[in-house]
Amino acid sequence: MSTEATPTPLSDVIAAITSDPAAAAFTARAAGQLREGVRCEATVRTHDLVIDEPLALGGTDAGPNPVELVLTALGTCQAITYRIWAALLDIRLDTVRFVTEGDLDLRGLLGLAEGVRPGFTAIRHRIELVGPEPAHRYTELARAVDEHCPVLDIVGQTEPVDREVTISTT
Amino acid sequence: MSTEATPTPLSDVIAAITSDPAAAAFTARAAGQLREGVRCEATVRTHDLVIDEPLALGGTDAGPNPVELVLTALGTCQAITYRIWAALLDIRLDTVRFVTEGDLDLRGLLGLAEGVRPGFTAIRHRIELVGPEPAHRYTELARAVDEHCPVLDIVGQTEPVDREVTISTT
Repeated sequence: MSTEATPTPLSDVIAAITSDPAAAAFTARAAGQLREGVRCEATVRTHDLVIDEPLALGGTDAGPNPVELVLTALGTCQAITYRIWAALLDIRLDTVRFVTEGDLDLRGLLGLAEGVRPGFTAIRHRIELVGPEPAHRYTELARAVDEHCPVLDIVGQTEPVDREVTISTT
Repeated sequence: MSTEATPTPLSDVIAAITSDPAAAAFTARAAGQLREGVRCEATVRTHDLVIDEPLALGGTDAGPNPVELVLTALGTCQAITYRIWAALLDIRLDTVRFVTEGDLDLRGLLGLAEGVRPGFTAIRHRIELVGPEPAHRYTELARAVDEHCPVLDIVGQTEPVDREVTISTT
């Protein structure tokens, strides 16, 4: 993979993977720590993030909360996949905007009601595309994006999470 | 819900929801737009985020990418749920650290191989707890956290995403 300071062209990424499928392996990683209250600091490669809860949910509102981050991930992954597949399908696309919402019932998180799941009970994802091509081409694009979008797949499908807890008693 | 500039105590959040279950409804929302290349700007309430891809994946590395954001959400949601459930179970907990990884096969995103899913093919979530209580109490805590963690539920279970695409041809 490229290390120079300019983006690798999509055609080069595809050529590299086509000649060596092992080049398609990408391990994403986030590390972090709980700080005061519910505020968390996290690091992704060279990028630092502060995650917190709104005041009403017991935080100091120093950043977005985790479920808001999931929606940000879903909206931006869709947008990026639109960019990539517009190039792959040779469709001109001028604008992609999204609004992504998820409904939570906090009784799930807090264990206050049986049978209420802690995660989203509904997700609504609205995306707006603007461009000069006939509408049927954007419909074709949307179908390709939904088939290939990583975060839509992660959120939409069952994903086993291998968990390991290390306990150090002091 | 509270609007003052200090965090609402957890006991107040629970009291409010217990007296009125409708207070448990929380709709999270992210909105954003695709900018140059694959860079995206997103807004969550008052918080702005820049999401991008690494150079090797065709971006300018102006921020974490969407799948890294999912892992950040999972790690921090676990950490916050540890804080909340430690309080609910009256378990003293001094430190929570996490490292969360996900494996992707980029052939799924790029449509370069049949049967390769675009999302994570594996997720590894390592969490480290430090505190003065006997180990069995942290085991009890970990079980409660995994039952009640919103993002673990979102990532780990099938989540239907209601999608709507608006196309404006110019």
